Amino acid sequence: MLATSLRTDTCGLLRRADVGRTVRLGGWVHRSRDLGGLVFIDLRDRTGLVQLAFGPAWTAAEVQHAAAAIGVESVVLCEGEVVAREADRVNPDMGTGEVEVRVTSIRVVGPAVTPALPVARGRGDKMPAEELRLRHRYLDLRRPELQDNLVLRHRLMQVTRRFLSDRGYLELETPILTKPTPEGARDYLVPSRVHPGEFYALPQSPQIYKQLFMCCGYDRYFQIARCFRDEDLRADRQPEFTQIDIEASFIEREDILTMAQGLIGALWKEAGHDIPAQFERMSYADAMEQYGCDRPDLRYGLVLRDYSSVFAGLDFAVTNAALAAGARVRGVVIPGGAAWSRKQVDELEALAKGAGAGGLLRLRMADGAYDGPLAKFLTDDAKAAFALTDGDLALFVAAADHVSSPALDRVRQECARRLEIVDDKAQRFLIVMDFPMFEKDPVTGALAAVHHPFTASHPEDMQAYPDEPARWRALAYDVVLNGTELGGGSIRTSDPAVQSRMFSLLGIGSTEEQERRFGFLLEGLRAGAPPHGGIAFGFDRIAMLLSGATSLRDVIAFPKTTAARSLFEGAPVAVPADDLRELHIAVRGEGVS
Amino acid sequence: MLATSLRTDTCGLLRRADVGRTVRLGGWVHRSRDLGGLVFIDLRDRTGLVQLAFGPAWTAAEVQHAAAAIGVESVVLCEGEVVAREADRVNPDMGTGEVEVRVTSIRVVGPAVTPALPVARGRGDKMPAEELRLRHRYLDLRRPELQDNLVLRHRLMQVTRRFLSDRGYLELETPILTKPTPEGARDYLVPSRVHPGEFYALPQSPQIYKQLFMCCGYDRYFQIARCFRDEDLRADRQPEFTQIDIEASFIEREDILTMAQGLIGALWKEAGHDIPAQFERMSYADAMEQYGCDRPDLRYGLVLRDYSSVFAGLDFAVTNAALAAGARVRGVVIPGGAAWSRKQVDELEALAKGAGAGGLLRLRMADGAYDGPLAKFLTDDAKAAFALTDGDLALFVAAADHVSSPALDRVRQECARRLEIVDDKAQRFLIVMDFPMFEKDPVTGALAAVHHPFTASHPEDMQAYPDEPARWRALAYDVVLNGTELGGGSIRTSDPAVQSRMFSLLGIGSTEEQERRFGFLLEGLRAGAPPHGGIAFGFDRIAMLLSGATSLRDVIAFPKTTAARSLFEGAPVAVPADDLRELHIAVRGEGVS
Repeated sequence: MLATSLRTDTCGLLRRADVGRTVRLGGWVHRSRDLGGLVFIDLRDRTGLVQLAFGPAWTAAEVQHAAAAIGVESVVLCEGEVVAREADRVNPDMGTGEVEVRVTSIRVVGPAVTPALPVARGRGDKMPAEELRLRHRYLDLRRPELQDNLVLRHRLMQVTRRFLSDRGYLELETPILTKPTPEGARDYLVPSRVHPGEFYALPQSPQIYKQLFMCCGYDRYFQIARCFRDEDLRADRQPEFTQIDIEASFIEREDILTMAQGLIGALWKEAGHDIPAQFERMSYADAMEQYGCDRPDLRYGLVLRDYSSVFAGLDFAVTNAALAAGARVRGVVIPGGAAWSRKQVDELEALAKGAGAGGLLRLRMADGAYDGPLAKFLTDDAKAAFALTDGDLALFVAAADHVSSPALDRVRQECARRLEIVDDKAQRFLIVMDFPMFEKDPVTGALAAVHHPFTASHPEDMQAYPDEPARWRALAYDVVLNGTELGGGSIRTSDPAVQSRMFSLLGIGSTEEQERRFGFLLEGLRAGAPPHGGIAFGFDRIAMLLSGATSLRDVIAFPKTTAARSLFEGAPVAVPADDLRELHIAVRGEGVS
Repeated sequence: MLATSLRTDTCGLLRRADVGRTVRLGGWVHRSRDLGGLVFIDLRDRTGLVQLAFGPAWTAAEVQHAAAAIGVESVVLCEGEVVAREADRVNPDMGTGEVEVRVTSIRVVGPAVTPALPVARGRGDKMPAEELRLRHRYLDLRRPELQDNLVLRHRLMQVTRRFLSDRGYLELETPILTKPTPEGARDYLVPSRVHPGEFYALPQSPQIYKQLFMCCGYDRYFQIARCFRDEDLRADRQPEFTQIDIEASFIEREDILTMAQGLIGALWKEAGHDIPAQFERMSYADAMEQYGCDRPDLRYGLVLRDYSSVFAGLDFAVTNAALAAGARVRGVVIPGGAAWSRKQVDELEALAKGAGAGGLLRLRMADGAYDGPLAKFLTDDAKAAFALTDGDLALFVAAADHVSSPALDRVRQECARRLEIVDDKAQRFLIVMDFPMFEKDPVTGALAAVHHPFTASHPEDMQAYPDEPARWRALAYDVVLNGTELGGGSIRTSDPAVQSRMFSLLGIGSTEEQERRFGFLLEGLRAGAPPHGGIAFGFDRIAMLLSGATSLRDVIAFPKTTAARSLFEGAPVAVPADDLRELHIAVRGEGVS
């Protein structure tokens, strides 16, 4: 399939069956050994390595001499005969290890300077620092590991499209030069040359466009869409990222979840994993109650429990004050945790405090005895309720749920890590659903959308508590694997009047303001919208998980640093003032305040 | 395939075989007729229309009453039984014309306001003005014609990817936030929030990235890539456009052309056309000589000829002066053109003058006699050479080729249009090759790259005329259909020393300047580059041609106007000064000069 005018074969696929064939190959000099009488070159292309052999019995002296002088990473074209290696020279670690090519002619077509970073590495060689690799991306991209990642990414893209288009989803493109979003703070802006003082924005997601496709009757949409978010980058974010974006009409939540499970199944299968057709389900409320987190890692237990009623029976001032203030006492029992030193438990408390908790109350049972500040306050009822066994450590947080949940989540994760109870092989897929529609700012009381303002609420909640939107659950869902969010989505509001009310609840009250900010969605809905909903998956993250990479930068060909720089091309850069003048803008601080 | 929790079927696919089935449907009210006793609704979804019937024999009175009141374009869910229409009520123009659905229940789930533009149109109804349709894109996108275009576009995308990935091409993504190009004038720039005064640029094409993939050993690359060009827009351009971008290694020109023919064949086949496996070939020199144009429309003749030697024998001052100055006299014979009025030929001359010619010399043969300023100067030799027959009109331009070619090209095209000799059904694919590497500025003499600076020259030309780069032909090629360029590409320079010389010839002489502007390509080449080349096709244009649309805007879901505006979303727009402050820029003219 890969034969061309310049080669009959690729390097990595030659096998014993090819013995006797005369082949022409092209590739990179991966390694080279001059043994005096014989010269060996490992030649590399996308398909792998093959050994080229040069010897006086089959190679002209000047050809062998020239071969010995070719520098690593140079590109050559060569011709020779495939021969079987002798039994004691077979290399079982190479796909082509049973053969070698006895070269009769070789020509350097792409001479290489000495690489700034080694491409060929021995076992155990340390990787160069990432910054250096990013700066010399043209070398790092030659590494077989990175090539494997990008080949897998390619295959995952093809599987995604095939899965979705086989199910009637249409791949529809949406603009990259679009309207700034109302929030704006995370938009990349693009000045217009034609319209002075006006700007496009790069899309944070195609959300409104995909809903418009539904309003316009396209029925099923997908796109492997580039999205942009200009924000402080965490180690695991990129300013531009790729998402599998999906929307469908005349559906209910279960239709989307069934499709989503199927798609994830197809992707995992492509990477060699068979996973369950049905994922576990959990409500947001249960996830928060049992794991303190809306994307729990189910590969281990250490489930949180509410111990408020137990503490209510104890004469313990700290927790009683909290309980009296309406808080709860929640905790987790760590089997084996009693063996940890005071310092080790202090570290856990520091984690809890880092998440906002006032402290972490501890109770140990070791050698049959209770230990810790609580010990002397314990009643028999409390002992029965805690049900500790020897070696257990119980940790509690007495606080409002929005404090205790993240604190205990962090403690739980760190304990699991320490105890080494996380099964690296396990893949625990989970669908979290019934998120709240709104979250209330604890200070101002203002409502904000947990998912986004276009999400539909449970109709029964809106009916039961028409004036208490904070109690409404959203028809939103996340797909979670081992504590990592793979994607999320929702059923959307298709009634423009309800959508308008949602905007009002979010503080966008006036019709004028709603029209200015969301008019083009409202127009679409008012023109007749079907029931619709969708989901979006983080494609970079999926490619990372399935390739076994530890950074998004290892599944993106030309990534940016956490400071949003491409070190290789050198972007962003200053541009001449004249170029900016044509765009009707100037940089502040250069004669501009 | 499209069944969901809310529907058992889609509208447009119900057939006689479904008679007797109870179906649930969702869709848009396309048309509605209340005949008193009976109510009919044509219900529409992506798959087409079906007639819903409401009558007292099967519909409850209040349901029928409600149905009659539903406005057009509202979205409904309904249930009913598929029944066969009586023979005299069969509608052969509808796919579902043999059946109707007798509805027992219907519910409006997406009420619609009266549409600002009619979606359902009768035969011969005039289309609303395009500006109005763009402004109300959420309605225009409901038109079945536009839906068909976007569905075809979707299918073409899937075929492209399948064709290429089946042949070992890897779909590899390149950045949208990238480094400004040296030319810069057509870049869209994006200010960085994190790095004050620095800018990204949106890519005009992934050219350098795809060459880097080749340097890095990815062997075969493709991408259906979004590209951006900020320039004065002609009616047939968009500021963001999509191209099928392809590159391969260890190939020669013929490998790329074979693949390109195959891909075009697969795309045309998807749209129902069988086309030749081999396209015609023509050199750039021949195309310019015979058609005055590098993308000739071969559906008609009217081939240009060089009449210099004929004119050299005539005592005709104007042409003799031109010949003496080194120009040629080229012309075209138009059978039937003698019937045109003086005014009609004057219009042709105006076209020639618009293209830069000083005039258009005419010679008519009508009723056995020659007519025109030349007539009295004709010798017998000249008459024999012109070989006019009765009714012919011959038109000549005496000028340098770079003037006569575009002038005669326009004249030729206009004559063909007038004579109605263009076969609308014909599809004449053509590969134009052997473009010159450089073009010389007629005034300054400076060289510019005809294709781009990374194109390789014919090695034999570089060897034969090492110091005359203006004589070098490029290993570049265009794929042309009926006078329209579908795509183009070239074999690239893979030797960094040759690439550096190319830059020097283009006036980028200093090493420092070359490194600053093209360093990241040169680094890639210096690290060992294989022979490589590629091609890019204009995907929007291909989708337009294959869908029969007359504008790119009819194959792009959310296009921009020729003034680069999206009238529907409303972009670009002014943004608050505070948002710009965060990006470290200000608009000129607002306190900034």
